[in-house]
Amino acid sequence: MRQYLSDFLDRPTTRYTIMGVILFNAIILGLETSGTVMNRAGGLIVALDTACLAIFVAELLAKLYARGLRFFRNAWNIFDFLVVGIALVPAAGGLSVLRALRILRLMRVISVAPTLRRVVEGFISALPGMASVFLLMGVIFYIAAVIATKLFATTFPDWFGSLGGSLYTLFQVMTLESWSMGIVRPVMEAHPAAWMFFVPFILITTFAVVNLLVGLIVNSMQDAHAAETNAATDTYRDEVIRRLAAIEERLKDDP
Amino acid sequence: MRQYLSDFLDRPTTRYTIMGVILFNAIILGLETSGTVMNRAGGLIVALDTACLAIFVAELLAKLYARGLRFFRNAWNIFDFLVVGIALVPAAGGLSVLRALRILRLMRVISVAPTLRRVVEGFISALPGMASVFLLMGVIFYIAAVIATKLFATTFPDWFGSLGGSLYTLFQVMTLESWSMGIVRPVMEAHPAAWMFFVPFILITTFAVVNLLVGLIVNSMQDAHAAETNAATDTYRDEVIRRLAAIEERLKDDP
Amino acid sequence: MRQYLSDFLDRPTTRYTIMGVILFNAIILGLETSGTVMNRAGGLIVALDTACLAIFVAELLAKLYARGLRFFRNAWNIFDFLVVGIALVPAAGGLSVLRALRILRLMRVISVAPTLRRVVEGFISALPGMASVFLLMGVIFYIAAVIATKLFATTFPDWFGSLGGSLYTLFQVMTLESWSMGIVRPVMEAHPAAWMFFVPFILITTFAVVNLLVGLIVNSMQDAHAAETNAATDTYRDEVIRRLAAIEERLKDDP
Amino acid sequence: MRQYLSDFLDRPTTRYTIMGVILFNAIILGLETSGTVMNRAGGLIVALDTACLAIFVAELLAKLYARGLRFFRNAWNIFDFLVVGIALVPAAGGLSVLRALRILRLMRVISVAPTLRRVVEGFISALPGMASVFLLMGVIFYIAAVIATKLFATTFPDWFGSLGGSLYTLFQVMTLESWSMGIVRPVMEAHPAAWMFFVPFILITTFAVVNLLVGLIVNSMQDAHAAETNAATDTYRDEVIRRLAAIEERLKDDP
Repeated sequence: MRQYLSDFLDRPTTRYTIMGVILFNAIILGLETSGTVMNRAGGLIVALDTACLAIFVAELLAKLYARGLRFFRNAWNIFDFLVVGIALVPAAGGLSVLRALRILRLMRVISVAPTLRRVVEGFISALPGMASVFLLMGVIFYIAAVIATKLFATTFPDWFGSLGGSLYTLFQVMTLESWSMGIVRPVMEAHPAAWMFFVPFILITTFAVVNLLVGLIVNSMQDAHAAETNAATDTYRDEVIRRLAAIEERLKDDP
Repeated sequence: MRQYLSDFLDRPTTRYTIMGVILFNAIILGLETSGTVMNRAGGLIVALDTACLAIFVAELLAKLYARGLRFFRNAWNIFDFLVVGIALVPAAGGLSVLRALRILRLMRVISVAPTLRRVVEGFISALPGMASVFLLMGVIFYIAAVIATKLFATTFPDWFGSLGGSLYTLFQVMTLESWSMGIVRPVMEAHPAAWMFFVPFILITTFAVVNLLVGLIVNSMQDAHAAETNAATDTYRDEVIRRLAAIEERLKDDP
Repeated sequence: MRQYLSDFLDRPTTRYTIMGVILFNAIILGLETSGTVMNRAGGLIVALDTACLAIFVAELLAKLYARGLRFFRNAWNIFDFLVVGIALVPAAGGLSVLRALRILRLMRVISVAPTLRRVVEGFISALPGMASVFLLMGVIFYIAAVIATKLFATTFPDWFGSLGGSLYTLFQVMTLESWSMGIVRPVMEAHPAAWMFFVPFILITTFAVVNLLVGLIVNSMQDAHAAETNAATDTYRDEVIRRLAAIEERLKDDP
Repeated sequence: MRQYLSDFLDRPTTRYTIMGVILFNAIILGLETSGTVMNRAGGLIVALDTACLAIFVAELLAKLYARGLRFFRNAWNIFDFLVVGIALVPAAGGLSVLRALRILRLMRVISVAPTLRRVVEGFISALPGMASVFLLMGVIFYIAAVIATKLFATTFPDWFGSLGGSLYTLFQVMTLESWSMGIVRPVMEAHPAAWMFFVPFILITTFAVVNLLVGLIVNSMQDAHAAETNAATDTYRDEVIRRLAAIEERLKDDP
C-alpha cells in the first residue's frame, strides 16, 4: 500500500495535476483581492480555495504516510509542509495577516517545478560564501545605528529615535533612497558635520556590497570553469602521461 | 523577374538608400513634434512622411514578391513587416497613440544596420538563460502583490488598491525609487510592521537581479572563452597526441 | 637649440615642476571660489593665477618650438593645447562660463601624471567596444522621445514639451531618479496606460546598460587573460613540441 | 613572566572570553540607546560598560607588556589600541560625539574573529588597485566643484555656496539621489543650459565607477585563477617536461 502510494505520487501525471491545482489556486487567490469579483461570486471563490487546500493537505498526508519519517529529510518537503501549514492556520483563526499569507501556498510551485527549484538552490548555495560579508555588514550596521541613535535621537526622533528606527533609516541610506534630500540635508541643518558620518557610511556599505557582487561573480566563474574545462583537459592530460610512460617503458625494455 | 528584384534588393546601394530614407524619415518625424515647425511647414512634413512610408511599403511588397513565403522565415523580415504595418494603421485611423507609434518605423534601422542587428541578437540570445530567473521573479511578484493588496488595499488604495496597482508599486519598490520616504514610511504609520514585508522583498528581488547579472556575466565569459582559446589549444593538443602516437608506432616497429 | 629645449622639457625635474605649478594653480582657483578670501587677497590670487597661466603658455610654446608639427601627432599634446587655450580665452573676454572653465587647466595633471594617463587611456580604449550599444541606446532614446513628446506634450509641457525636454526626462527615468513618484504616477493620472510605455522603457534601457557592463567585463577579462597566461603557456608548448620533434628525429636516424 | 602572559593571551579560551566581552559590551551599549532602559537601570548599564572597558584596557596593557614594541608592528594591534583609546577619551571628557563613538569598540570583534579579519583584509588589499581611479575621481570632483561653485553659487547658495557644499552636492548627484527633480531641474530654471554640465558629469563619474567595478572583478578573477589552476597545471607540465627529457636522455645513450 505504501509502495503503491509512493509510486502514484512520483508519477508525472500526479505532479502535473498538483502543479495545475497550484496555478488554479493562485488565480483564485488573485481573484479574491478584487472587491467586485468577491461581491458577485465570493462563496464560489472561497469554496474553490478550500477545495484546493484540501487537495494539498491530502497530498501531503499521503506523502507523509508513504515516506514516513524520511519525508522530513528532504528540505523541500519541509518547505511544502510549512507553506501548506501556514495556509491551514488562517482557515481556523481570523487574523488578516495570516489570511494574506495563504498565497504563500503558491511557493509550492517552486518545489514542484524543477527549473525554479534549481534557481532557488543556486541562490541558497551562494549564501554561505556571502556569510562573512553579511556578518561584517551586520557589525557595521549595528555600530552605525548605535552612533546615529546617540547623536540624532533627540533632534530627529522619527528617523533615529530607537535602535530599530536607526537600522531601518540606515538601510534606506544604503539603498541611496532619498539619502541626501530626504535625510542628510535636514540632519545637517541641526548637525552641520553629519556628512562626516553618512558619506563614509555610504562609501563603506556600497563598497562592501560591490565586494559581495565581485565575490559572487568570481565564485560562479570558478565553479563554471572547473565544471566545464576539467573534463576535456583531464582526459587529454591523462592520455599524454599514459603515452609518455608507455614510451619510457618500451625504451627501458629495448636494448 | 523575381531573381532580378531579389538581386536589386540585396545590392549595397539599395540597402544604403533604404537606410538613408529611414534616417530622413526619423528627422521628419522628429520635426513633427515641434509646434513651430508644424505651423510653418506642416503640409510639407506630412507629405514627406507619406513619401517615406510609400517607399517602405514598396520595398516590402517587392521583397514579399521576390522571396515569396520564404520572406516570413526570417524573423527580421517579420519585424520589418510589423513595424511598417503599425505605421500604416494610423494613416487610416485617427488614434493619437497609433500616430505616435509611427516613429517605431525608425526601428527598421536596426534590421538594416548589421552592427545594431548583432547587438539586438546578442540581447535576445541572452534571454533564454534568464528565463527561469524571470519566472521566479514573476512568482515572487505575484505572491507579494496578492499579500500587499490584501494587507494595504483599504488603507492605501492609490498604491495597493488592485492587483495591478500593487504590481506597479512593487516594481517601483524593486527599483528602489522613493521606496522608503514615498511608500514604506507612510505605510508604516498605519501598519508599523510593514517593513517586515518590504525589506525582505527588496533583499530577495535585488538578490535575484544580482544573480541574473552574475549568470549573464558567467555565460558570456564561458562563450567568449570557449570561442577563443579552444582553436589554438585543440590544434596544439592534436599535434602532441599525433606525435606521441607516431613515436610509439616507430618504437613498436623498431624491434 | 631645439634639441636642448626638447631634452630640458623631458627632464623629470621639469615635469615635476610643471605638476607642482598645476597643483598650485588648482589651489589658487579653488581659493577663488571663496568670497572671504577674494575680498582680502583678490589681487594676489588673480596675479598668481596669471603667473601660472604664463608658465603653462611658455611651456606649450617651448614644446611647440622644440617638436615642430610633430607636436600635434600626440593626442595628449592637443589635449594640453585645448585645455590651456580655453584658459586663455576668458582672460580676454568676460563671460562667466568661460571664467569658470579655467579650472579645466587642472586636467593637465592627467596628461602629466602617467598613472592617471593610463587610467584615462583605459577608459577611452573601452569606448569602441561600446559604440554599437551606445548607437542602439541612441535609437531607443530617439524613438521613445518622439513617442513621449507626441503623447504627453500637451498635458505635461514641463517634462515632455519638446524633443530635448523628453530626452532629458527619459534620461532621468533611465537613471531611475523619481521615475515613479515624480514622473510616471502624475502622468498616469492623465493617461492611465502610461506605464505601458515607461515600464518597458526602463526594462529595455537598464537591460542594455547591464549588457554594456557585461561586455566591458568580458572584454577586460579576455585582454587580461590573453596578456597574462599566453607567455608561460606558449613557452611550455613550444618546448614540448620541440622535444617531441627532437625525439622523432632521433628515432628516424636510429634504424 | 612575559612568556607566560603571551601564552595566556594566545590561548583560545582567552580569545573566546574577549570576544564574549566584546559582544556583551555591544549589547550594553545598544541598551544605552534606549531611554526606558536607562531610566530603570542606568547605573547598572554604565557600571557594566566601565567593567568591559576595564577588561579591554587590562588586555591591551598585558599584550603591550608581553610583546613590547613588537606590539605596534601588527596593524591589527594598532587598530585595537586606537579603538579602545577612543573609548577611553569620553570617559574623561563629556563630548556627546565622543560618547557616541564608544561603540567603535565593537569593531574589535573584527580583529578577534578570523573570518571578519580576512574579509576586511580582502577589502584593504583591493584598495591599491583602485588608487589611480580614485585619484582621477578626485580630480574630476575638484574640477566639477570649482565650476559648479563659480556658476551656481549666487543663485543656489544652499547647494553650491562653497567648494565643500558643491563637493557634497556633486557626490549626491553621482549617487543619482534626487539629481534631477531635486537639483538639476530647479537649477535649469535659472540656468537653462545646466544639463550640459550635469549630464556629462553623471555619465563620466558613473562610467568611472563602472570601470572600478570591472577592474575589481578582473583582478579578483586573475588572482583566483592564478591561485587555483597553477598548482595542478604546473605539476602536470613539470612531469611532461621531465619525462620528455628522460626519453631524450635514454635515446642519446642508446647508440
